[in-house]
Formats: sequence, structure tokens, C-alpha cells
Amino acid sequence: MINNDIELLKELLPFWNKLSIDEQKLVLNNGNLLRFKKGQSIHEGGHDCTGILVVISGIIRSLFLSESGKEITLFRLLDRDTCILSSSCILRDITFDINIEAEKDCEIYLIPSEIHKQLCKSNFYVKDFEAQIMASRLSDIMWLMEQVVFMSMDKRLANFLLEQADIEGTDKLYITHENIAKNLGTAREVITRMLKYFQNEDMVSLSRGTIEIIDKGKLNQILNY
Amino acid sequence: MINNDIELLKELLPFWNKLSIDEQKLVLNNGNLLRFKKGQSIHEGGHDCTGILVVISGIIRSLFLSESGKEITLFRLLDRDTCILSSSCILRDITFDINIEAEKDCEIYLIPSEIHKQLCKSNFYVKDFEAQIMASRLSDIMWLMEQVVFMSMDKRLANFLLEQADIEGTDKLYITHENIAKNLGTAREVITRMLKYFQNEDMVSLSRGTIEIIDKGKLNQILNY
Repeated sequence: MINNDIELLKELLPFWNKLSIDEQKLVLNNGNLLRFKKGQSIHEGGHDCTGILVVISGIIRSLFLSESGKEITLFRLLDRDTCILSSSCILRDITFDINIEAEKDCEIYLIPSEIHKQLCKSNFYVKDFEAQIMASRLSDIMWLMEQVVFMSMDKRLANFLLEQADIEGTDKLYITHENIAKNLGTAREVITRMLKYFQNEDMVSLSRGTIEIIDKGKLNQILNY
Repeated sequence: MINNDIELLKELLPFWNKLSIDEQKLVLNNGNLLRFKKGQSIHEGGHDCTGILVVISGIIRSLFLSESGKEITLFRLLDRDTCILSSSCILRDITFDINIEAEKDCEIYLIPSEIHKQLCKSNFYVKDFEAQIMASRLSDIMWLMEQVVFMSMDKRLANFLLEQADIEGTDKLYITHENIAKNLGTAREVITRMLKYFQNEDMVSLSRGTIEIIDKGKLNQILNY
């Protein structure tokens, strides 16, 4: 069992071989393999001091909530991606909170914040990894910023539908307009209006509770004009 | 002269005392004290591989440009603040470019990217500093994201005018509507309309090329309702 864990950790943590024996033991004794169901909350920024999350399977979604309860999706992680913002309680220069939830059923390896803190104290490679993950998330968020500030809503919606179809592996999406609006940080009315326009242009077909993509090519064209 | 430099570097670089003698020499021999005039470009993301910038005096502004030439102000740095995104050419996980310009006359200490790279290779404290600065900028940008996504334009404009008055040390601002629009990533018409509303409410007084704040209290109220 321990051997299996070590093999897994070697795979998940790029710095594993650079840890001292004591540091490796620390991770082995305190790390946890967790399972979450689709929709379940994994980390609630304001209250939780969770730790480093490494996605083994499934997809997690990080969202940012305004004081008034509005939300926007910041980034999605899958397939060996790592989240350290869920360990922000020990990162004194991170002044915002995010929430994380399972977008699909998922398996996650969790290194608690307390252990993250100890590893970061002196190990160059853990620090390097931390800086690297921070840079990746900064890049993700700048990409989102570019979308929000410079990209019109029709492009953002087309992009969202195509991405979602890709994630779900189907062109028939069971998602409410309200939910899309939350994802994109806008009002439901804006999304409903735009979807109707897409329907008139024969790109999607709308019915109660579902949106079916019927012309991916046309949706893709929106992104490029 | 060298002694003066060392005193300055001790003050500017939190990791100075943790550098080896060779590393300190590397910085001393390659670092530069630079002066820029207000409005001058310091770093142009797409082309430049500048390095770490530490602000000694004045203010620098970092901006993000869309492909179509629109811009938004990402953050401002002053008074010992450090920018490492100007050294993004050596940060492989940073996938976006920013521009930096002098918002006021300024004095800057520059550590070229090549030296930054060498210092980062093995020194834990430089890496730690890098992760910390990255986290600060991530927090700045998340704050901006919150504004852009969740805050209405009246609040953002009120906030901008108050900030600008603070930076310039005067309530009479010489700034065009076009320029404000660029700063906030919106269209000139949106700003003009909003400023006229502020004028009708006796918060500002508009004349050709200037905006004078005449009631800071009221502008502040906008931020809080």
C-alpha cells in the first residue's frame, strides 16, 4: 500500500525526488486521497485552510464569488493539474479567496496546508514548484481578464458552449441560462438573448433545460471574426 | 560609489543578505539605475526581455493590450515595489505580455533577466521572493477582475478619479475621456456619459481637457452604496 502511494506521489509531485527522506515521510503520513461527487464543494475560500490539491481524475472548477453572491469561473483543473490557491491561508501575499468544486466526479490528492508550509520553508524545489503553479494560475486569470475586458459576449458564450461540449463529451448540454450567466459573470437576460440569436442563426437548438449545439463550425466562426 | 550601491541594494532587495558573494557581485556588475520621464515606455511585453524592476521613486503603470489595440491598466507600482513580469521572457509559465510605462518621472533599479535567471537557479531566497511577488501581482489582478466583473462602471470611474487625484496630489485632473476609457478598458462614450452624470450631481466639474473633483465626499459615497 505504501509502495503504491510512493509510486503515485512520484507521478503527481514533480519535486518528490528532491524531498529529503523526512520530507517524503511527512507527505506520506499526512497526504490524503479523496473522492468527490460532481457538484460537491471541495474548498470554500473564506473558511477553509485546505492545502495543495492535485487532480488525479475528473475536473475541478475554481470560482470567485462577489460579496453580493455573484460568481465567475476562474479556471478548471484536470489531469495532474495542481491548485495551491486552496492553500492560500499560508500564502500571505494572496489577498483573495476562491471556492473550488467538483465539476465532474473526481479523485484528488490533498497535501494539507500545514505540510505545504513545512515543505516550503527550506526546500528550493517545492518553492520553485509553487512559483511555477502561481505563474500558471496568473496566466489563466490574465487569459480570463482578456476575455472579460476585450472579448464581446457572443464570443465568450460561443467559447463556453464549445468548451462545455468538449468537457461533457456531448453536444447536448443540460445547463440553465442562469448557470451559464454565473459562469461568465453576467446576467441571465444577457445569456438568454444571445442564445436566442444563436438559435435564429441555426447554431444551437434550445428546449427546456437543454442547449444542443447543431453547428459547431458556425460557433467556431464567431470566435474568429 | 560601490558602497552606495551596496547600501541601496540592501534596501531594495529583501534577499540581498542571502546572496553569496559571487551572486552579489553579479548583481552589482550588471544591475542598472535608470531614469524615465513621465509617459516614457519602460517595457514592451512582446519584444522586450527587460528584467526585474524595483521602483526607487515615481510611479510605473503596467498595462495589458488586446490584439486590437485596446488597453487596460493592470496595476501601478511605486516606492520599493518590484515587478518581475517585466522579466517574463525567462518565466516559462507566464503566457501573456504586459507593457510598462512611467506614470510619473521615475528612478528604477533594473536587474537584467539574464541575471535574474542565474539567481533563480539555485538560491532559495530569490525563488521565495519571486513566488511572493507573483502572489502579490495575482492578488492585484484578482482585485481588478472583481472590479471589472462585479463592480458597476459608476463605482469604477469614481474610484479611478479619487485614485488619480491622490496620485497627482491635486483635484484638478488633466486627463482625456479617451484616456480614462483606456485605463478602465471601456469605450470613450461610456466614460463621457458617466462624467456628465457626475457633473449633474455636482461631484465634478468638466471643462476642455480637465476634470475637477468638487465633492470628494459624494464620489466616495458612490463606492459604498
